[in-house]
Amino acid sequence: MMDNTLFTVNNVWMMICTALVFLMHLGFSLLEIGLTRQKNTINILFKNVFIISIGLVLYTVIGFNLMYPGTFVAGVIPDYFFDLFGLNIPEDGLTIAYADGGYTYWTDFLFQAMFAATAATIVSGAVAERMKLGSFMIFTIIYVGLVYPIVGSWQWGGGFLSTLGNEMNEFGEVISEAGFYDFAGSTLVHSVGGWAALVAVWLLGARIGKFKKDGSIGAIPGHNMPFATAGVLILWLGWFGFNGGSVLSANPGKTSLVLVTTCLAAASGGLSAFLVSLFKYKQYDLSMFLNGILGGLVGITAGADVMSVSDAIVIGFVAGALIVLAVALVDNLKLDDPVGAIAVHLVCGVWGTLAVGIFGKLAGWAQFGYQVIGVVSVGTFCLIMSYAIIKTLKSTVGIRVSAYEEQEGLDIEEHGMDAYPDFRLNQH
Amino acid sequence: MMDNTLFTVNNVWMMICTALVFLMHLGFSLLEIGLTRQKNTINILFKNVFIISIGLVLYTVIGFNLMYPGTFVAGVIPDYFFDLFGLNIPEDGLTIAYADGGYTYWTDFLFQAMFAATAATIVSGAVAERMKLGSFMIFTIIYVGLVYPIVGSWQWGGGFLSTLGNEMNEFGEVISEAGFYDFAGSTLVHSVGGWAALVAVWLLGARIGKFKKDGSIGAIPGHNMPFATAGVLILWLGWFGFNGGSVLSANPGKTSLVLVTTCLAAASGGLSAFLVSLFKYKQYDLSMFLNGILGGLVGITAGADVMSVSDAIVIGFVAGALIVLAVALVDNLKLDDPVGAIAVHLVCGVWGTLAVGIFGKLAGWAQFGYQVIGVVSVGTFCLIMSYAIIKTLKSTVGIRVSAYEEQEGLDIEEHGMDAYPDFRLNQH
Amino acid sequence: MMDNTLFTVNNVWMMICTALVFLMHLGFSLLEIGLTRQKNTINILFKNVFIISIGLVLYTVIGFNLMYPGTFVAGVIPDYFFDLFGLNIPEDGLTIAYADGGYTYWTDFLFQAMFAATAATIVSGAVAERMKLGSFMIFTIIYVGLVYPIVGSWQWGGGFLSTLGNEMNEFGEVISEAGFYDFAGSTLVHSVGGWAALVAVWLLGARIGKFKKDGSIGAIPGHNMPFATAGVLILWLGWFGFNGGSVLSANPGKTSLVLVTTCLAAASGGLSAFLVSLFKYKQYDLSMFLNGILGGLVGITAGADVMSVSDAIVIGFVAGALIVLAVALVDNLKLDDPVGAIAVHLVCGVWGTLAVGIFGKLAGWAQFGYQVIGVVSVGTFCLIMSYAIIKTLKSTVGIRVSAYEEQEGLDIEEHGMDAYPDFRLNQH
Repeated sequence: MMDNTLFTVNNVWMMICTALVFLMHLGFSLLEIGLTRQKNTINILFKNVFIISIGLVLYTVIGFNLMYPGTFVAGVIPDYFFDLFGLNIPEDGLTIAYADGGYTYWTDFLFQAMFAATAATIVSGAVAERMKLGSFMIFTIIYVGLVYPIVGSWQWGGGFLSTLGNEMNEFGEVISEAGFYDFAGSTLVHSVGGWAALVAVWLLGARIGKFKKDGSIGAIPGHNMPFATAGVLILWLGWFGFNGGSVLSANPGKTSLVLVTTCLAAASGGLSAFLVSLFKYKQYDLSMFLNGILGGLVGITAGADVMSVSDAIVIGFVAGALIVLAVALVDNLKLDDPVGAIAVHLVCGVWGTLAVGIFGKLAGWAQFGYQVIGVVSVGTFCLIMSYAIIKTLKSTVGIRVSAYEEQEGLDIEEHGMDAYPDFRLNQH
Repeated sequence: MMDNTLFTVNNVWMMICTALVFLMHLGFSLLEIGLTRQKNTINILFKNVFIISIGLVLYTVIGFNLMYPGTFVAGVIPDYFFDLFGLNIPEDGLTIAYADGGYTYWTDFLFQAMFAATAATIVSGAVAERMKLGSFMIFTIIYVGLVYPIVGSWQWGGGFLSTLGNEMNEFGEVISEAGFYDFAGSTLVHSVGGWAALVAVWLLGARIGKFKKDGSIGAIPGHNMPFATAGVLILWLGWFGFNGGSVLSANPGKTSLVLVTTCLAAASGGLSAFLVSLFKYKQYDLSMFLNGILGGLVGITAGADVMSVSDAIVIGFVAGALIVLAVALVDNLKLDDPVGAIAVHLVCGVWGTLAVGIFGKLAGWAQFGYQVIGVVSVGTFCLIMSYAIIKTLKSTVGIRVSAYEEQEGLDIEEHGMDAYPDFRLNQH
Repeated sequence: MMDNTLFTVNNVWMMICTALVFLMHLGFSLLEIGLTRQKNTINILFKNVFIISIGLVLYTVIGFNLMYPGTFVAGVIPDYFFDLFGLNIPEDGLTIAYADGGYTYWTDFLFQAMFAATAATIVSGAVAERMKLGSFMIFTIIYVGLVYPIVGSWQWGGGFLSTLGNEMNEFGEVISEAGFYDFAGSTLVHSVGGWAALVAVWLLGARIGKFKKDGSIGAIPGHNMPFATAGVLILWLGWFGFNGGSVLSANPGKTSLVLVTTCLAAASGGLSAFLVSLFKYKQYDLSMFLNGILGGLVGITAGADVMSVSDAIVIGFVAGALIVLAVALVDNLKLDDPVGAIAVHLVCGVWGTLAVGIFGKLAGWAQFGYQVIGVVSVGTFCLIMSYAIIKTLKSTVGIRVSAYEEQEGLDIEEHGMDAYPDFRLNQH
């Protein structure tokens, strides 16, 4: 018999987590505008409210059914691929969705829809200050509407990644289960965004003034560090829901363990990035501390439910150090990523996924192999798809604003308005 | 037998929703200061902290007993009208408050108290930059303390609107129930604030410089679009509680459906306002996108629990379009509403209420009639009451600051301080 | 038999409260930067992300085991004092932690860890704009890692304060229990921070320009009142978790009563500070309103679960008035507390603790005696410890930045960056 009260509790927890993941869009907005120049603020805010809005609608129309089809063609292409008629929720949304007592399909849909928009948000920061708004919007629609749910279906929809290590007997029956493991999406969400960010940054080119003719790298500071800091703290809060909700129930032992590992990895990531950058650059660097926190969060995401306290601290610490190194590496590769999205979401996303093969004690070293296969398959697909989309946009409508528009700022040129139109210094 | 655990779950959910509605006051504060000039920022922030504080105290002293009296004099004036002795909660706050397993009276009180302050907050934005603080405070006390709970009692307190369509047999027994439907307050909260905003804006007159002698309309831009955007995203989050809590239990099917319709209407409203304004003004207008989101949220509020996914998207889409048209209309009527409160809360509040008669499948077209009656009764009462209050204030203490004070800004004149007193441009 | 579903509900509520207490660190950050000068913004943000990060790690490594040891040496020094090996959670974190159905140790740990960092955050505001970052970090590590958990163990760990009034029979068996009462930490958290703030402010000396040679007091205005206001509203929200979670279960009657008393004390405190400052200074003072809200919140914290509605309003009202008087007193004592931390956390912390002896109806006037003993013991210990730590730092590495660094701002000197590096006035 179903425990109705437990069903209700699970549903309450999942709704709260949904709300927290929604709030991450405020976190991303504030972080991105904080780390970029004032003249492109409206443009970034516009992109972010567009992403969450179109993301929800697209996930209703195609994403949800594409990602959780139950059946597959050859285990790769979900066979509801052309079911474009939107939500088809049985029994008034009340059917049990998952194990541990379940919760409603409505909640399941909304929680997953909030995730879907995240991938495009990651790209938004990386292409800031120079990408054409229209092209970004088209990219978002395709990436959120198709690429993200297809990749998601490989694992969370029961596709080939989730059954990589299954063993069968002579009758074709599964006798032991094993496979790629990605608890809340270090790979399936963060690196999906991160790979596209890498391709976009490469195809777009750097902002004017970033890489100088003499080979030196110009610093292009952001305009509002309080916004950036608030953004990171709000993202951390949002991760309570992002990871805590990925338990897919209110199971007390699992959810609370996940919150502990998540918070410790964040703390450890921040401290590590701060210490490494203090050692490397002799400065108490707030930006590095902030990106270190995010790196720790992304790093723990793949295995938040299977790590011990000390595992979480180590994973976060490595992630924080990787942030400092990766930010420098991206610069040295002449890639211009204004907010550090590649370091945070791609590098730490890959690290977190591999870490499950090292610390997770799941299937021994075979697990490490499954993790590598997951990283490589998702990476290959995302690289190909994002290259195809962005290259096509580049050859047709164009992806980069004019040099004049870039110098004047996208706010005035694309939106006809300043972010702080009436701001003035105190005369009193 | 009461299920104590279910009672506890309901109570947890309702406390969370209470917290989220509380947070809406931060959302309103940021939205209002973002869309107005810097020189009136302190004034708006002061009004908002005053409203939530006085609102809570007034609702304790009179509002709660006035709104949920249980008995009525003639179904219109609650008969606890003169019981000013405050909360009278039976059995230590633990009595079941509502159906579906109940929750505590303490929670019920606090959730409703958070709603009460909202009506005045709506007016705050519309009268920004020119209304005398003292007069606004007196208006708030009367409107939150008396007008809002009386109107609320007509429907949520079991008054005449809630029983409009009841049919009785020859013995006077109710044999079928029907009536006005307003799930979470498109009319009872939002248009209650919206009607007062309309009257206040009309009696106050426009800000200096808004309507020029040559008939043209001057743009008076706000001072901080990041704050406005953050405010809207926080309001959207708050609506998880505003609508989700209006289920008055943690019923999983209903609460999660409500969150889905709420979010889809918000998304659809934003996209619609963006597209209509792009078509009309050829610009990617962030302000319109933001107000479109709010319009979608207000529009779905009356029927969030009875709409399908496609209904919600349509209701939001219409609301978003109405925002663009109504903002232009208000301007053309020479009404000066700095934040678009009339378009958002009044126009979309009326739209959302009527939409229940179109999409809600409640009592057929008779329902549409009940909705019209509700809109008209509440509108008439609010227009009369707010006219009486504001006109009286205008003829006595005055409602408008001097032209000098308006030009200098209310912050210096009424509060002796700037919002950003030490702000300076980077010299390094 | 344990009710597993109730266990799950308790755990959900406690996880939410944990998230809300986490968010208080954003509230403190925004409040502190809002009330201080722009040139020290990065420094304050850095301190705040450092505190939450190091606080979590330290609480893992020593704090949790130090504070909740179960056994004591002489009731004062917890006997796990030297157990530095971190979390030692039995049975996979699933053991019942407390009464009323329990929740997991993981949640218990994380909730308490979020509290631990708060004490240092309070100090951060008081020493803003002139304390050396390195010295502040060392102070934080010692205070959060050792002083806070030792004091906490005296009451919440079952130490001597919690059993002050126990009566025993001739066989040494406890026959009636009574003792110091501090529900959520007016003394154990807020005044622990407040006493250290007092010592630090005294040993540091005032900021240049605060107290002039002619005896007048210079106003040093902050740089961003919207941030300060947002910070206070976020702190108020956080207090839903700070006090609501201190019930240590989702018990519906207790949690919802606590939210009601908490919100009414906040509202009442704000209104009181506004009215007293209007009377005293003839101005609608937003800063006083904000600090009055915080004063009301700190004041209710010691007895939020044992107060009536009218008690809460009175306690908040007194706290609000105390804020106005205490801010003036601190100034007159030539102590320079940029954010009013001493008035808010120390004065109102003491007031709230004593108020439990007046309103709480616990153990008659004997209770008042226990409260005084609690205030005095904690105060004495914190004064001695913070004096020892800060004085030692002062005599060795120094605690105050150079006059040059203070005038240039700590952002450039310690962090090599401005808070708003690209900010510019609108040229369009």
